[in-house]
Amino acid sequence: MRINEPTLILDEDRCKRNIEKIVDRANKAGVIFRPHFKTHQSTEIGEWFYKKGVRSITVSSLAMARYFADAGWEEITVAFPVNILKARAIDELAEQVRLNLLVSESAAIDFLQEEIRNPLHVYIEIDSGQHRSGLSYSNKDEIQRLIEKLKISDQVKLKGFYTHAGHTYGARSGREVNEIAAKAKTNFLALRDLEVVKNYAYDLEFCWGDTPSCSTWETYEGLDAISPGNLVFYDVMQYNIGACDLRDIAVALACPVVSKKEATGELIIHGGAIHFSKDYIEKDNVKQFGVPVDSNTWQPLSGGYVSALSQEHGIVKLQKEDFEKYKVGDVLFVLPVHSCLTAQAMGEYLTTSGKYIDHYAQKNRG
Amino acid sequence: MRINEPTLILDEDRCKRNIEKIVDRANKAGVIFRPHFKTHQSTEIGEWFYKKGVRSITVSSLAMARYFADAGWEEITVAFPVNILKARAIDELAEQVRLNLLVSESAAIDFLQEEIRNPLHVYIEIDSGQHRSGLSYSNKDEIQRLIEKLKISDQVKLKGFYTHAGHTYGARSGREVNEIAAKAKTNFLALRDLEVVKNYAYDLEFCWGDTPSCSTWETYEGLDAISPGNLVFYDVMQYNIGACDLRDIAVALACPVVSKKEATGELIIHGGAIHFSKDYIEKDNVKQFGVPVDSNTWQPLSGGYVSALSQEHGIVKLQKEDFEKYKVGDVLFVLPVHSCLTAQAMGEYLTTSGKYIDHYAQKNRG
Repeated sequence: MRINEPTLILDEDRCKRNIEKIVDRANKAGVIFRPHFKTHQSTEIGEWFYKKGVRSITVSSLAMARYFADAGWEEITVAFPVNILKARAIDELAEQVRLNLLVSESAAIDFLQEEIRNPLHVYIEIDSGQHRSGLSYSNKDEIQRLIEKLKISDQVKLKGFYTHAGHTYGARSGREVNEIAAKAKTNFLALRDLEVVKNYAYDLEFCWGDTPSCSTWETYEGLDAISPGNLVFYDVMQYNIGACDLRDIAVALACPVVSKKEATGELIIHGGAIHFSKDYIEKDNVKQFGVPVDSNTWQPLSGGYVSALSQEHGIVKLQKEDFEKYKVGDVLFVLPVHSCLTAQAMGEYLTTSGKYIDHYAQKNRG
Repeated sequence: MRINEPTLILDEDRCKRNIEKIVDRANKAGVIFRPHFKTHQSTEIGEWFYKKGVRSITVSSLAMARYFADAGWEEITVAFPVNILKARAIDELAEQVRLNLLVSESAAIDFLQEEIRNPLHVYIEIDSGQHRSGLSYSNKDEIQRLIEKLKISDQVKLKGFYTHAGHTYGARSGREVNEIAAKAKTNFLALRDLEVVKNYAYDLEFCWGDTPSCSTWETYEGLDAISPGNLVFYDVMQYNIGACDLRDIAVALACPVVSKKEATGELIIHGGAIHFSKDYIEKDNVKQFGVPVDSNTWQPLSGGYVSALSQEHGIVKLQKEDFEKYKVGDVLFVLPVHSCLTAQAMGEYLTTSGKYIDHYAQKNRG
């Protein structure tokens, strides 16, 4: 395998180890594991979950749900507010799989009850503190109103409550993750005390999904299901949050070195915003767009980082000793800051054993 | 045309007006216009340039050069440091088109002279102040050394000098653009005074490419060629720099409204990092990832902006009056911060008259 252009390398062993770890943990805790496939978006990597006993998955769009439905998955949660302009896509999916959607307002429920023929389930999405999407956990009146509204229909059934405590991404240590998540979980699980929940005709599921807390918690006490996604690969951002070790990161972008700037000790690589995405972390007020590593050991080049990205260019700052080691025509491996977006941008994987693996973004742009 | 998912809308009139404006200006100034096609990456939009007399184009990768070579373009500059791992792709392109490459070090010239059979031209890339890529304008010794090195070969011929004064992106007014660019141009054109340049066997070309200065300057005095790209579409970043008017922006991302957050006056749209890219501008220390506009007039919704993006979600802050106007199921139009990256992410265009237009990213991920 000779790499001569930006190529997303997948360490299959690390990836499978990540999958195994979370599957084991979910099994021990007795929670349903509904992994979010928006990170890898690959039918083949999906099979690795299936082999570990996973039978229900989560995705972030109807189109992605279609991709995995066609690959044979039978239960799919679309963890994104219902798009009421997509009646046909929803109905076709609901016909083919056990479809779970997210709602947080009346308009979406009306639409599902009026426009969709096939049966499906919905979670009420709860904002447990992130303030992105979902109904605020404190808005009990509206939550009860939606629950009542869902009682009238057999075709659109309430499955339970879903929350993404994405504000754990603001943490900078495992302890901070746990503190933020514990508070969010308390907010979320307080809904169990609502009379309408306690007296519901059947048990309602409390599903929780964010990689940082699912990685740092030892148990998932009080929850029924979890749906983290990023932990299949992890990335520099998760490491920075305190959710993983650098040795857990399962993807690296291999980038040809196209120029050396002797004056500044910087490498120019072919690997830019259209390969990495523009996500970054900040350390000491310096933006870092990736972490260069040794291509054999995937150990970070001490003090090195990607300091800037334009459309195709990446600028890599290295310590003098490492800078001297690289020459034009070498291939530099870089751990991405946000693996979900890097995988989406690249649209395929090459495993360390030389095999290409599918990604939805490739399959669906042809 | 019924939009029900994130869709990149192209205003053909605005785009053609942008093309016409710069072509006219280049013609008047008597400079060669080598437009950078990395922004639109479309063979069809390329034709609009061709019809205005453009015969030579610029791209940012060998793969993109291949796309446009196959579409019939006969002279192509790859404005990216030579990737010496791609001998075959370079040789095949050099056989088919008049190929111009960028070099800034001996290793790349050695490679071209030793590994490539077909004739091609190179520009020496000059760093006129951006400090991204290229040899520093002040490094006269090394520049002369490369020029001497290029004299020995008929197969790899020196075409001239190329610079991208990308530090104009730091400007916040047309006047600031001009100040930064004027200094960079002085640095760049000082190379004309080198004896080896003055006495070269033929005239060497000074080619200049950045959208801000090419937009704000009235003339291109002293330059032989220009190769800006973004000005085909412009975007919120260019507006923020002072390089264009909002009425010049020719693309908008149409995004379904999937949720309304009454408590905060925010819309949630289907339109996230995988559609917009994560580039942003900062205003009063607030990040803005896009500017929502009226879908008919493309006039900004006063005070509105995209405040956050996750993979598929966009959060849009609107003033109360505008917030009330939108309901779940509407489609919100948003001017992108960086149109090059948004176009790359979307992989196709839908014109305001309902026609789909190609983009390289779509064509090459199938």
